[in-house]
Amino acid sequence: GKHRPVLSPAAERLRHILGEDDSTPTPTIFTEMDTLQQEGGELEWKESARWVKFEEKVEEGGERWSKPHVSTLTLHSLFELRTCLQTGSILLDLEGYSLPQIVEEIVEQQIADGLIPPDLKEKIIFVLLRKHRHQTKKPIHRSLADMGKSSNAASSKHVYSVCMPFYVPISSYERNRSMNDISDTPSTDQLKNKFMKKIPRDAEASNVLIGEVDFLDKPFVSFVRLAQATTLGGLTEVPVPTRFLFILLGPHGKTKSYNEIGRAIATLMVDDLFSDVAYKARDREDLIAGVDEFLDEVIVLPPGEWDPKIRIEPPKKVPSSVLNLNELGQVNGLAGGAAGGEDEELPAPHELGEELKFTGRIGGGLWLDIKRKIPWYCSDIYDGFHIQSISAVLFIYLGCITNAITFGGLLGDATDNYQGVMESFLGTALAGSVFCLFGGQPLIILSSTGPILIFEKLLYEFSKNNDVDYMELRLWIGLHSCLQCFLLVFSDASYIIKYMTRFTEEGFSSLISFIFISDAIKKMVAFKYYPINRGFKPDYITAYKCECIAPDQAWDNNSLDLPTLNTFSFNLTDLDWSQLSKKECVKYGGMLVGNSCKYVPDLALMSFILFFGTYSMTVSLKKFKFSRYFPTKLRKLISDFAIFMSIMSFVGLDMLMGLDTPKLIVPTEFKPTRSDRGWLVMPFGKNPWWWYLASFVPALLVTILIFMDQQISAVIVNRKENKLKKGCGYHLDLFWVGVLMAVCSFVGMPWYVAATVISIAHIDSLKMESESSAPGEQPQFLGVREQRLTGTLVFVLTGLSVFLAPILQYIPMPVLYGVFLYMGVASLSGIQFWERIKLYLMPPKHQPDFSFLRHVPMRRVHLFTLVQIVCLAVLWILKSTFLAIIFPVMILGLMVVRKLLDLMFSQHDLAWLDDILPDKDKKKKEDEKKKKKDKKAPEPESDEEVRKCTIWQVWICLS
Amino acid sequence: GKHRPVLSPAAERLRHILGEDDSTPTPTIFTEMDTLQQEGGELEWKESARWVKFEEKVEEGGERWSKPHVSTLTLHSLFELRTCLQTGSILLDLEGYSLPQIVEEIVEQQIADGLIPPDLKEKIIFVLLRKHRHQTKKPIHRSLADMGKSSNAASSKHVYSVCMPFYVPISSYERNRSMNDISDTPSTDQLKNKFMKKIPRDAEASNVLIGEVDFLDKPFVSFVRLAQATTLGGLTEVPVPTRFLFILLGPHGKTKSYNEIGRAIATLMVDDLFSDVAYKARDREDLIAGVDEFLDEVIVLPPGEWDPKIRIEPPKKVPSSVLNLNELGQVNGLAGGAAGGEDEELPAPHELGEELKFTGRIGGGLWLDIKRKIPWYCSDIYDGFHIQSISAVLFIYLGCITNAITFGGLLGDATDNYQGVMESFLGTALAGSVFCLFGGQPLIILSSTGPILIFEKLLYEFSKNNDVDYMELRLWIGLHSCLQCFLLVFSDASYIIKYMTRFTEEGFSSLISFIFISDAIKKMVAFKYYPINRGFKPDYITAYKCECIAPDQAWDNNSLDLPTLNTFSFNLTDLDWSQLSKKECVKYGGMLVGNSCKYVPDLALMSFILFFGTYSMTVSLKKFKFSRYFPTKLRKLISDFAIFMSIMSFVGLDMLMGLDTPKLIVPTEFKPTRSDRGWLVMPFGKNPWWWYLASFVPALLVTILIFMDQQISAVIVNRKENKLKKGCGYHLDLFWVGVLMAVCSFVGMPWYVAATVISIAHIDSLKMESESSAPGEQPQFLGVREQRLTGTLVFVLTGLSVFLAPILQYIPMPVLYGVFLYMGVASLSGIQFWERIKLYLMPPKHQPDFSFLRHVPMRRVHLFTLVQIVCLAVLWILKSTFLAIIFPVMILGLMVVRKLLDLMFSQHDLAWLDDILPDKDKKKKEDEKKKKKDKKAPEPESDEEVRKCTIWQVWICLS
Repeated sequence: GKHRPVLSPAAERLRHILGEDDSTPTPTIFTEMDTLQQEGGELEWKESARWVKFEEKVEEGGERWSKPHVSTLTLHSLFELRTCLQTGSILLDLEGYSLPQIVEEIVEQQIADGLIPPDLKEKIIFVLLRKHRHQTKKPIHRSLADMGKSSNAASSKHVYSVCMPFYVPISSYERNRSMNDISDTPSTDQLKNKFMKKIPRDAEASNVLIGEVDFLDKPFVSFVRLAQATTLGGLTEVPVPTRFLFILLGPHGKTKSYNEIGRAIATLMVDDLFSDVAYKARDREDLIAGVDEFLDEVIVLPPGEWDPKIRIEPPKKVPSSVLNLNELGQVNGLAGGAAGGEDEELPAPHELGEELKFTGRIGGGLWLDIKRKIPWYCSDIYDGFHIQSISAVLFIYLGCITNAITFGGLLGDATDNYQGVMESFLGTALAGSVFCLFGGQPLIILSSTGPILIFEKLLYEFSKNNDVDYMELRLWIGLHSCLQCFLLVFSDASYIIKYMTRFTEEGFSSLISFIFISDAIKKMVAFKYYPINRGFKPDYITAYKCECIAPDQAWDNNSLDLPTLNTFSFNLTDLDWSQLSKKECVKYGGMLVGNSCKYVPDLALMSFILFFGTYSMTVSLKKFKFSRYFPTKLRKLISDFAIFMSIMSFVGLDMLMGLDTPKLIVPTEFKPTRSDRGWLVMPFGKNPWWWYLASFVPALLVTILIFMDQQISAVIVNRKENKLKKGCGYHLDLFWVGVLMAVCSFVGMPWYVAATVISIAHIDSLKMESESSAPGEQPQFLGVREQRLTGTLVFVLTGLSVFLAPILQYIPMPVLYGVFLYMGVASLSGIQFWERIKLYLMPPKHQPDFSFLRHVPMRRVHLFTLVQIVCLAVLWILKSTFLAIIFPVMILGLMVVRKLLDLMFSQHDLAWLDDILPDKDKKKKEDEKKKKKDKKAPEPESDEEVRKCTIWQVWICLS
Repeated sequence: GKHRPVLSPAAERLRHILGEDDSTPTPTIFTEMDTLQQEGGELEWKESARWVKFEEKVEEGGERWSKPHVSTLTLHSLFELRTCLQTGSILLDLEGYSLPQIVEEIVEQQIADGLIPPDLKEKIIFVLLRKHRHQTKKPIHRSLADMGKSSNAASSKHVYSVCMPFYVPISSYERNRSMNDISDTPSTDQLKNKFMKKIPRDAEASNVLIGEVDFLDKPFVSFVRLAQATTLGGLTEVPVPTRFLFILLGPHGKTKSYNEIGRAIATLMVDDLFSDVAYKARDREDLIAGVDEFLDEVIVLPPGEWDPKIRIEPPKKVPSSVLNLNELGQVNGLAGGAAGGEDEELPAPHELGEELKFTGRIGGGLWLDIKRKIPWYCSDIYDGFHIQSISAVLFIYLGCITNAITFGGLLGDATDNYQGVMESFLGTALAGSVFCLFGGQPLIILSSTGPILIFEKLLYEFSKNNDVDYMELRLWIGLHSCLQCFLLVFSDASYIIKYMTRFTEEGFSSLISFIFISDAIKKMVAFKYYPINRGFKPDYITAYKCECIAPDQAWDNNSLDLPTLNTFSFNLTDLDWSQLSKKECVKYGGMLVGNSCKYVPDLALMSFILFFGTYSMTVSLKKFKFSRYFPTKLRKLISDFAIFMSIMSFVGLDMLMGLDTPKLIVPTEFKPTRSDRGWLVMPFGKNPWWWYLASFVPALLVTILIFMDQQISAVIVNRKENKLKKGCGYHLDLFWVGVLMAVCSFVGMPWYVAATVISIAHIDSLKMESESSAPGEQPQFLGVREQRLTGTLVFVLTGLSVFLAPILQYIPMPVLYGVFLYMGVASLSGIQFWERIKLYLMPPKHQPDFSFLRHVPMRRVHLFTLVQIVCLAVLWILKSTFLAIIFPVMILGLMVVRKLLDLMFSQHDLAWLDDILPDKDKKKKEDEKKKKKDKKAPEPESDEEVRKCTIWQVWICLS
């Protein structure tokens, strides 16, 4: 049951003053707290703490700023502050132009209010106009000059010599010029202060002055708001104009208590709500209402469970600073408790945005995609000019050429070099750059994928066995497939991926990651060509040899008992067999005899060191961003260039060792791999005409393959977590993939679709974080540098790699496999499925505070994870058989499993662990209606939604 | 200025009631909070949170306990609780034996107080006697049984079937048996609850019941203290007797607010101060005073700087729970602020305890040492029976035999095998086990050290060149040295190490660590015997060979142009040269020809992998203790056995590869390494008589060497941080080292002193941590398992190693070097000097919150570190020259440098960065008197202290 909240009087008052004029936002407040210090009989104001958002304290003796931390106050000090504001003098909208004038007015006011006797006026003014000493960072070279002096003496001497040329007896309180230590204009120290960068431009200062004097017997408290923010000379550490002044002078003996009151008002001044109140307060009561409201919202830690000396690190995220008047006084109040509370809320529903709406017009989606992307086109270019792009290009480039070489090599094997490494390079360059220049989501990286490779292999075998021309058949399949893609594009068919939930996405991307990881490791283990020389005894080195023996001689050697001189065969071949290399020997039909022939020393272990070293160095350097060493910018640079630096290091190590590790070899001549084919494939002439039509059937398979592969990758790239701002273009993407299929078929190059892992790596390498503004504020993930430049450059470089062979040949393959391994592992992190697998090994008390763990029983979570693991295992097994060709179709199987999960899990659990299927949204709502539970249900779907679901179900049944 | 604190009324009241009877400590309180839930029309009390010290919440939906966290309350709820206590009924010392009776009394009281109308009695009693459902962990296998059912349905069904056999209409409020769902005796669930382990034995329960009902229009609040703690059936999750009951029933619509009040009283009940008040309160006013006092000490977090949803992890340490009445109301009060505050305190002065007092009697120190150690002797044995000891023994044993082999080998080289590996093994076993059985500090591990090795080398060379019998000369030096040690022991000379500060200790131990690290790496780099076959081309394998060629034939081969058949030489030697192994070939004067002779494949890289792998695996496994995976006990086991597991893994890998890596070889026959010497060395007969006297001079050097080396290591082992409880025995230690010197000299074995790094490793492997009692409490470091068993076992095993050779021969040396590297690196961690070096690379904002950084300016810290680095560099250079022999004497140099630092740094800075030298304590005090600063100075030293300082200064001048 809900009823209109009853507000407390304080909240009512605040609603009134804050509600009056909500349009002008108040400036940010920077607070500085200075305390009165007596050094050698001289008084001065010394900065002791400052606040932008969090507190920074001057370490006594340490002469440095503490780390920013959350201000922990005592409740006592807040109450005392409240009393101070009730009894002290409040001057609102005082016209002030200089500190002496303001101080004079404050003191006059106090006398007028009868708070202090008039004879103290001069003394108080004298004290308030003492020099302010700020904590500025001292250069390190000073330390050497300080040698031999105690540091305290050194620094105080410095101050005296500058600002205290002669001794002013504290008893001669006269109001002359010497009384005023403060200059009217900001000093160079102030102007040079680098801290200024951390303060927002519109900031105004609030100065808190806390001191003990001997001539007062009760505290002198004054809160001043100036009519205009005014720069009051050396009052503030930075040249920020002062708007607020809080002065607390009191009798001796209560320093700690006064300091706590100063910290309390300073913390209040940087509080969003109270600073608003301070700007808009009409009178003392408003301020006190502000304090009360603050008190009502504070969080209290029990003394026995927390040590007040611990400085609390600023949290990753603080509640939104947007002031919500409706929530005023309602959050904790008895008045307005909502049944259930925050714990009962369901997670935000899965949203894919309007890009996937079914328009109902022919090519409507494509048209919308183009309309959406065109306005960004310019920024797509100039957003790319950033140092981060360089590292991204290098990283992705290396990934791409490794991929191109691997798939090129495999394709060459599979198709008798009709498509080889050369085609793979050029095709990657062509398809990739076209897609990055014109595609809907330029962050997607195109690449050959496993299923396509298997399809080509089967197709080539079929053609050879049936005497069909492979290239021509392939061309026709490509053309059909291109047309089918267009059909899908113009019918807005991509909208169906809206029905893919986290379960499906995670299954797909984990599988791809596992394939990457296992491929990398498999390739390393495949160093069977360089076996380790086990059981090698260094002492018997003389017995290890590998000799080339002429073919006829070999026979003789078998009957080695009596050596005969075979001058005959020697003359016959005219070859010095023992001088031949291994390859030559085999070539000329010689025989390799000896026990060391198959061993290659050091290579296996060296490869392992390069592989594992590259991987671990990359991981460590990536993590370096979170270390304590070096300034933030340098750390970020190191982290951004982690992969490049690791590759360089291990290429260097490899060169240093000078071992014959397998190196990256790129083709250097610009011609098709197979010499009997030209660049262009002719569509007619080699096969009977009915093949042109029949190729429709295999094309259908290719289309499903491409559609699933492309669009799931796109969904993963366009995930909400990536905070992409420029929109995506599923229809446009598919359009270009179709076009490129046709083009690649004509020039006999491989077909390309989006590569999940490399695309994720591309995004990861382009992530932006906010520069932290206020000290202690955590940098926030802002989004991804969305542009077309890096992708395009990567593919241009891939194309140019044909000419870069002399440089690239120094890169050992194990290093690249290390990069592969890193890519696979990195793309696993951040997948919830993976986090849930880890939960199996964690005792409950160590488990991270995931929100789904707060809402779903552990055993349900484990069961859900188990289902995912089983699905993946089945997919993995299928993938290893000939069924790999229908691999993307198997993703449909995942979706069926997800549908069955609705029977096993409650919608509530699924909402937390996965997303609710669109047709379930409604069902769930009905469930809830029945149960009459007070949960926030997602908005009801339109009828169209329901219709779509039916289409979807038909689709599942068909496939 | 200080004056007697004025207490607040609340504090005055508490002082009264708590001061009355401070002798009986109150039991610990376990609090359980249950809320009233309505499921399917049925009411039940469901556990929602519990407190032992920190809060654990039942995750709604998650059906699990949250991690223990600090209870963050709202100030609002505390105020509301205060109001509740003011208006509700308070029943103190109620005689209660069953829940129905107690509930009846509560309700009667409310009616008597006129708080509720009598007609509600039945309804309230009905509600309060509903069944309590506790959150108990469900076994994981249930999850499979639950398949196909929605989890919510499943669990509620379960509950209904057990405790709600028939439906009781909520309108028929009759007081019959069915009203009372609660059994009188604890259920088996309660008794079986493993959580009981976490609750202290003397604990009493406090039950908080919070509920909403429809028949009340204002809250029903009752606070009950029972006269005796009574087990009230199924009320509490564990069979802990209930002492307190807090009941809050209220009208609908304020669930959240009620829950917050419940959390507030629950948190108060586990607060040390308030629970005391609750036990001793005489009336309502006392309770409210308790709340007020609690409020006065709470810590407040500003709402804008902290998100209340964040669960705060329990701190490493909370302020002491000892209730100090004098501090009551004084901590935060305006009343009693001490000038300066906690920041001005100096660190605790360096203390070495009474063990190093100068007794002034002959052998007084030794006598005290013996008196101190004797009572512990039995526990020294039986404290060793613990699983941790096994891992410690394995670890230290491996370190010891590696050391014994290394030093044995080097000594053998240096002394022409007069002392070899055999002597090293037996000497280590003998000296070590005697020391561990009878020494003052059995945690110290004796070993050969570098300086001794160098001394022996120089001595042997001297003897050889001057025709003096080495063994006899060495015996006399040993005897003299032993006597000198006795002199030092009986004159209590060890007290001088009292003047060694952190500066000296850290310098010494860092240097030793660096030597360990550099030795380990040097030994790895020394694999020049197995160079990598650079530039190897697998294709030219046929050209790689290494042939053994007969000496005369070699000449012919140089003129290889025309091959001649050397049947002549063949017959001459009658050897098939090509069948000889490398060693044989060299032995018979053959010549090794070929380009592969000096290469051994794979060995270098394999050694590197073993070395680095052992090191990194050990580091990772050690760190595993802090990971989130696996239960705490398993993690601790893995961490304890980290070194053993790494060694086993890499020994396994090495065996798998079957490469001929250099293995650990221990002598197998029990005889002196050099066959021309017997076990016993005769003191007379070989050298002229005056050598017996002259050996006094070199003996003096050895004594200084041994004294410094032994005692600095002992100081490091006995550091306060290690929390040793059984006391140490510097004099006793030195006594046994002296005795062992004489014994070892007689049997011609090396001399032994304490080895810093291995001793630290020994201590590290025996560290104890408290089992965390209350959930969320951090385990505390309790101390070290001080006993004589592990040390003795290590050395017995070392002695037996002669027979373990068949097993030990599988351990490759690189694995052991990896262990060495780990030991060196591990002993560096925790040294403040090392932490300060790291500060150079950290920008100030990332620096950890070291206390010295709060008090000493950064540039002074850096300067101090720089001085230490320079000192170490100088020592390192000296160590690398022949001056290494006076290495321990150089430690005296470090002390001189430390003395000079008094001129460069203020005593304040040194007190934080180092310790104050004893004679400076007084000086400092005088300084302070002059400055009239209000700092806490260490207690003045006695006159004797001053006298000692003079002796100390003389000592420095002499050396």
